[in-house]
Amino acid sequence: SRSINLAVIPGDGIGQEVVAEGLKVLSAVLPQDVKLETKEYDFGARRYHATGETLTDADAEALKKHDAILLGAIGDPSVPSGVLERGFLLKLRFLFDHHVNLRPSKLLPGVETPLKGQPAIDFVVVREGTEGPYTGNGGTIRKGTPHEVATEVSVNTAFGVERVVRDAFARAQARPRKKLALIHKNNVLAFAGHLWTNIFNKVAEEFPDVTTEYMHVDAATIYLVTQPERFDVIVTDNLFGDIITDLAAAVSGGIGVAASGNINPSGEFPSMFEPVHGSAPDIAGQGKADPTATVLSVALLLRHLGYDAEAARIDEAVSVDLAERTGKPARSTSEIGDALAVRVAG
Amino acid sequence: SRSINLAVIPGDGIGQEVVAEGLKVLSAVLPQDVKLETKEYDFGARRYHATGETLTDADAEALKKHDAILLGAIGDPSVPSGVLERGFLLKLRFLFDHHVNLRPSKLLPGVETPLKGQPAIDFVVVREGTEGPYTGNGGTIRKGTPHEVATEVSVNTAFGVERVVRDAFARAQARPRKKLALIHKNNVLAFAGHLWTNIFNKVAEEFPDVTTEYMHVDAATIYLVTQPERFDVIVTDNLFGDIITDLAAAVSGGIGVAASGNINPSGEFPSMFEPVHGSAPDIAGQGKADPTATVLSVALLLRHLGYDAEAARIDEAVSVDLAERTGKPARSTSEIGDALAVRVAG
Ligand SMILES: CC(C)[C@H](C(=O)O)[C@@H](O)C(=O)O
Ligand SMILES: CC(C)[C@H](C(=O)O)[C@@H](O)C(=O)O
Repeated sequence: SRSINLAVIPGDGIGQEVVAEGLKVLSAVLPQDVKLETKEYDFGARRYHATGETLTDADAEALKKHDAILLGAIGDPSVPSGVLERGFLLKLRFLFDHHVNLRPSKLLPGVETPLKGQPAIDFVVVREGTEGPYTGNGGTIRKGTPHEVATEVSVNTAFGVERVVRDAFARAQARPRKKLALIHKNNVLAFAGHLWTNIFNKVAEEFPDVTTEYMHVDAATIYLVTQPERFDVIVTDNLFGDIITDLAAAVSGGIGVAASGNINPSGEFPSMFEPVHGSAPDIAGQGKADPTATVLSVALLLRHLGYDAEAARIDEAVSVDLAERTGKPARSTSEIGDALAVRVAG
Repeated sequence: SRSINLAVIPGDGIGQEVVAEGLKVLSAVLPQDVKLETKEYDFGARRYHATGETLTDADAEALKKHDAILLGAIGDPSVPSGVLERGFLLKLRFLFDHHVNLRPSKLLPGVETPLKGQPAIDFVVVREGTEGPYTGNGGTIRKGTPHEVATEVSVNTAFGVERVVRDAFARAQARPRKKLALIHKNNVLAFAGHLWTNIFNKVAEEFPDVTTEYMHVDAATIYLVTQPERFDVIVTDNLFGDIITDLAAAVSGGIGVAASGNINPSGEFPSMFEPVHGSAPDIAGQGKADPTATVLSVALLLRHLGYDAEAARIDEAVSVDLAERTGKPARSTSEIGDALAVRVAG
C-alpha cells in the first residue's frame, strides 16, 4: 500500500492557518489506500526567540526522512531581516539541493489582475535555487567606516546551470506550446551570462522541438506586463527568478494564489512546497488569509510525488472556486479550505 | 552671454531620427542669447564594424570638453551582445563617473498604461551608476568545460553608496511628498544589503522631513504594478535599478516616453542624457519612432545645466502633445518633433 510521510512546517503568522487548510485538502483528495502520515516541526520566529535556533543539524536529519515538506511561511518583524531567510529557508534549499525552484503563473478565470484586458497568462518559471548571488559568497571590509567595501559574489557552475536548464527544457517539451525563454543579463554580466547562454544553446540542440528565445531581465519585466501571454516556460538564475516570479505572481492574480516548489528532482532529499506569500503578520490569526496558494502548493507536491490525478483534481477545484468568487462575500480561511476539500473529494 | 557646448551621439537605428528631433526642440526652446554649439560623434555599430573601436581614449578626451552629451541609442544585432553596451555605454558611465542614473516615471494624461484604472504614477528612480554587479569584476575558470565556474562580483563602497543616497534624499526633500524608498534585497545579499541599509538610515537622520521606507526588490515589482502611486523617489543599486526602471517605464506609458540622465553631479565630467529605449533596428529609417523620450531627455539635460524654465516648457509641451494624441492618426517622428518645437517656442 502507498504512503506519504509528510513534514509539516506551519511557521509564522498566517502560516499556521493556511497549512491547516492545505492539509485538509490533501486528506480529502487522497485515495483511501494512501496512508498519509504527517509530523509537525517548529521553525521560525517563535523557536528562534526561544532557543536561538533556526535549523539545527538534528532538524535537517529529521526532515530528510520525509517524502516531502509542506511549509506555510517563515518570517516575523521581531527577527532581524535575513536571519530566518538565510538561517532557515535558504539553508534548507542548499542542504537539500533544491535546485529547481518551480513557480507556475496562471491567470485563472474570475481572478483579478492589475493588467488591462485579462491576458491569457499560463507559464511556469524554473528558477535556479542553489547558486547565483544567493550563495552567501562575498564579504565586507572596513565595516562601518567611510571606507567600507561590501561585495556579493554570484557563483555559477556548468554543473548547476546545465541541470536546471535541462529540467526546464524537459518541462517545455512536455507542454503544448513547447517554448522556453532564458532570462539573464548577458550583455552586462558577461561571465555568468556567457555560461548560461552557452549551456542553454548547447542543451537546446537536444530539444529541437522546443522553440527558444533569450531575453534580458530588464526587458522581461516589460513583457511580463505588456505581453505576459507570450511566455510558456522561463528558465533563469536565482536572483532574476526571485524578482520576476514576484512580478509574475502580481500580474497573474497576486501572491494569494501563487504556489511554489523547491524541488530536488533526483529525490535524494525531500522537496519542499510553499506558497510564495510571506507570513503576513498584520492579518495573522484572524482567519483572513487565503489558503489557495498553499492548496496549489499541495498540488505541486502531489504531482512531484507522482499523484498526477489528485494534483489535477486540486487545480480544477481551485479554478472552479476562484471562478465562483466574483460578487460573493469574502470567506474565512477555513471556509475556503472546507469548500476546496468538498470539491476535491467529490 | 550664455552657451551650451553639446556633444551629440545619434548612434544606431532610430537613434539618428530621434536625436534630430531632440535637437530641433532644444533649438526652439532656448532663448536667443544662449549660443548652442553642437558637435556630432560617430559611435556605435557602424564605427565598430569599420574600425573595431567603441570608445577610444581620444574620444573620451574630446567628449570631456562638452557641457553635456545627448545620445540617441547604441546597439545593433550585427554586433555581439555586450560589446557596445560594455565597450561604449558602460565605459562612458564609468569614465565620466555618472553615478546618478536618473529615471523619472510619470504617467501623463492620455497615455496608455497596461495597468487598470490609470493610476497617478509620478516618481523618480535614482539608480546608482558606477558600482554593483556592473563593474565587470568576476571571471571564469575552465571555460567551456563541464567544470566551468563563472562569477560576477557586485562591488559596493561606502563612498559610492553614500553619495547616491544623499543625492536621492535631496531630490526627495525637494518634492512635495518628500518620500524616499530604498530598494534592495538585504535579507539575502547581506553584505551589500547591510552597507546600503546602514548608510540609508544614517543619511536619513540629516533629512528628518523625508519619510523613508525599505522594500525588497521582489516586493517592489509587485507594488510597481499594484500601487505605483505610492512611490515618490526610489534609490537603488545599479542592477536593481536597471530592472525596476524598465518595469517603471512599462507601467507609465512605455519606453516611448521614458527619459534618463547619466549624471555626474559635481560637473567634473559632462553628464549624458538618453532615452531609455534602444536602437529598435526593426523600425529604423522609417520615421516611425516616437522622439518623445529623447525630447524629455533634453528637458533633463536642460534642468541639469540650470535651464529650469526651458525644461519645464518642454515637459509642458510634451504633456499637451500626449494628451491630444488620443483618437488622432499616428504622426511621423519629425511631425511629432515639429509639433513639440512649435509648442515650446510659443
Ligand atoms: C524570503 C527570501 C529569502 C526568498 C528568496 O529571496 O528566495 C523569497 O523572496 C522567495 O522568493 O522565496
Ligand atoms: C544597455 C545596457 C547596458 C543598459 C544597462 O543595463 O544599464 C540598459 O539596459 C539601461 O538600462 O540603460
